[in-house]
Amino acid sequence: MTQDRADAKRPRIVVVGAGFGGLEAAIRLSKAPVEVVILDRSNHHLFQPLLYQVATAVLSPADIAFPIRRVFRNRPNVVVFRANVAGVDLDSNEVVHDDGTRTSFDYLILAAGAGQSYFGRPEWEAFAPGMKTLEDAARIRARVLQAFEDAEAEVDPEALKSHLTFVVVGAGPTGVELAGAIKELAVDAIARDFHRVNAGDARVLLVEAQDRLLPAMSRESSHAAREALAKIGVDVRLDTRVISVTREGVTLEHGGHHEAIRADTILWAAGVMASPLGSSLGVTCDRAGRVVVEPDLSVPGHPHVFVIGDMAAVTCAKSRQPVPGVCPAAVQMGTHVAKIIASDVHARHRASGSPPRPAFAYFDKGSLATIGRAKAVADLWGRHFKGFVAWCLWSFVHVFFLIGFRNRVFVSLSWAITYLLYTKGARIILGDPESRVARRVE
Amino acid sequence: MTQDRADAKRPRIVVVGAGFGGLEAAIRLSKAPVEVVILDRSNHHLFQPLLYQVATAVLSPADIAFPIRRVFRNRPNVVVFRANVAGVDLDSNEVVHDDGTRTSFDYLILAAGAGQSYFGRPEWEAFAPGMKTLEDAARIRARVLQAFEDAEAEVDPEALKSHLTFVVVGAGPTGVELAGAIKELAVDAIARDFHRVNAGDARVLLVEAQDRLLPAMSRESSHAAREALAKIGVDVRLDTRVISVTREGVTLEHGGHHEAIRADTILWAAGVMASPLGSSLGVTCDRAGRVVVEPDLSVPGHPHVFVIGDMAAVTCAKSRQPVPGVCPAAVQMGTHVAKIIASDVHARHRASGSPPRPAFAYFDKGSLATIGRAKAVADLWGRHFKGFVAWCLWSFVHVFFLIGFRNRVFVSLSWAITYLLYTKGARIILGDPESRVARRVE
Repeated sequence: MTQDRADAKRPRIVVVGAGFGGLEAAIRLSKAPVEVVILDRSNHHLFQPLLYQVATAVLSPADIAFPIRRVFRNRPNVVVFRANVAGVDLDSNEVVHDDGTRTSFDYLILAAGAGQSYFGRPEWEAFAPGMKTLEDAARIRARVLQAFEDAEAEVDPEALKSHLTFVVVGAGPTGVELAGAIKELAVDAIARDFHRVNAGDARVLLVEAQDRLLPAMSRESSHAAREALAKIGVDVRLDTRVISVTREGVTLEHGGHHEAIRADTILWAAGVMASPLGSSLGVTCDRAGRVVVEPDLSVPGHPHVFVIGDMAAVTCAKSRQPVPGVCPAAVQMGTHVAKIIASDVHARHRASGSPPRPAFAYFDKGSLATIGRAKAVADLWGRHFKGFVAWCLWSFVHVFFLIGFRNRVFVSLSWAITYLLYTKGARIILGDPESRVARRVE
Repeated sequence: MTQDRADAKRPRIVVVGAGFGGLEAAIRLSKAPVEVVILDRSNHHLFQPLLYQVATAVLSPADIAFPIRRVFRNRPNVVVFRANVAGVDLDSNEVVHDDGTRTSFDYLILAAGAGQSYFGRPEWEAFAPGMKTLEDAARIRARVLQAFEDAEAEVDPEALKSHLTFVVVGAGPTGVELAGAIKELAVDAIARDFHRVNAGDARVLLVEAQDRLLPAMSRESSHAAREALAKIGVDVRLDTRVISVTREGVTLEHGGHHEAIRADTILWAAGVMASPLGSSLGVTCDRAGRVVVEPDLSVPGHPHVFVIGDMAAVTCAKSRQPVPGVCPAAVQMGTHVAKIIASDVHARHRASGSPPRPAFAYFDKGSLATIGRAKAVADLWGRHFKGFVAWCLWSFVHVFFLIGFRNRVFVSLSWAITYLLYTKGARIILGDPESRVARRVE
């Protein structure tokens, strides 16, 4: 599969998905005497934590994406193909592409991540898009900006309300950050650039089924996040379930009481469902479609096939806690399987038996989330930070883990400009989102 | 149409299209005692001269676009609406939107620009897209980058050639700049990031029906441009006509001799056709669909309706030459009609008769075009420049005329990074361009 036929002798490791886990594994394995084949649907590695800033017109798609093959420019034993993997043939050790072609492997690392879950209500997706890819974020940006355009042209007061109501479902980091950023965008944009509608008309709801925001973080952070969101005017609804989503809006349920809310824009940040590649293996998966893997992250009965990142259901060997679906976990899993494969290959060369495999242990580095303008919450080193300090931590961490010099420069600059000039740099509508104006001004 | 009903008394000027001409007219009129209504299909003003750099992954779409309403943030007498104008009712003085609603006007400025012309072969558009909007450029970028991805995965040698053959039709500034930039992208990208294909396999053809490149520029510039393109390896075909375009490629005709060329990517930069709004007026138009206007740029028989920019067929009052379809001409026309309307309105206030109207005279500021990396040609102040000097002139002029501080900073930075690091910053595929791999590597 590479121009260098000598590689044919080398064991081939196929990596499906170049997210945080797959990329990490590939990078580490690229130094071993192996051939690495990376298969990904898109041509870029995506820095998902900043996706919400693309959706809210702060960043451009290219700022948080990096061409996968650029990473391996100087690693001739790594080839990258843009491909849609349809399944895995565990008997013949081949990955099957959607066009029927196959790619054989000696080792396989499945790291295809997760998509949005609508808890058995797939029909909601059409009205409440999720945000997992750059395309998703770009569509959401167009949708949100079009809602303001519709408001400016609207005469009907009921329709106007609907144009300017934004409902975000799910108060994990993505939901919290999205809600804060949309409210900010609304206030900045409407107050200054729209001459007919008023900033006061814009309304952002954040709906969470549990009793607090950021359930995965500390209670202090949940509390601080709620205070910060309240301050900028986000309408937070806890202990509240979404019982219906239509083109017109959502119906919420809180303590048996129902409320229908008209909204043009509904965004889904609630549940995740692992890539169907996992369930296609025919092994045990959990309710979120994640493969229940062995302690070493291999698939039961298939020691040369590994599942990592959001596709894997793992219990930490140390804490005995389930490993969360976050970037650091994916990266650590990538490192773990790379080490196992490398020492396997090494043993092969020495023609000795394959060495014992360590169980995966997750090291929790802590977590962060931003809330609107220069505010954030952070749980790090067993401590809790909030406000500007936390925001600086958040900014540093995110720029630091971005891939690519250009991206670091552009993202930092965009933040500086957004912070100092109160403007969003990427406020352009691409494509032609549906306009919903009921009665246009004459 | 604005929140301030007092405006009702003021004469309303409707501007259709916020390109260079329309935006200039609106800005100047915003200072007069009038109400200005801007109608545009998109929410942003687009800096078209740099569109080719979006198509070749140097810049992000947002870098060369600016929200129209941002320009009028502090001009309450200007309202902006995202709208699709379907036609003009000259009897009732109303603009008709595609949803049937109408916007009345006292004065109308039509500045909707031009689209691509396929010389009566509209069926070619599907295989040879043009580049007039950000969406076009983003699609072309995805198409071009996908061609490289296909090449990397290709086994069939004939198909490989086709993946890596890029045909640009039309050698005006856009065609020349596009061809140069694609060749550069190919060499930079393939040589370094693709491990299976070789840069040598990439081929860029530039096809022009006339006997020289940049026919609108000086012969020196044409010559210099051809030399520069030859140097970076672009295959220039002059006196050559395209006689067929299919999904498989193009057939060229040169001196009675025909040549069929297989190519996945064919880009159209040949002819332009004015917005159909012009011909819909029912007045005389030229072959390119441009309205033959009076010397003052008004529509014959309708002194309060003006057509400017690429929609207008005008003869310069001084040079007696037809005014070219370039940005400076559009801007000057915008200024011209703004002045006429302003003095009309002023006269109205004084209840005196409308003053005599000057004829439009075009002042040629000269023209520039880049060829690949840090090279350009320029005809300015009756003199000819080329090479690095011309490129510096070109860069300065283009950054200078960009709207928005952020855009100036980001474009300058992108160029610096591209120039110094030999990388293109926006090499991401958005959407899912068709893959044309004939036989995929196993």
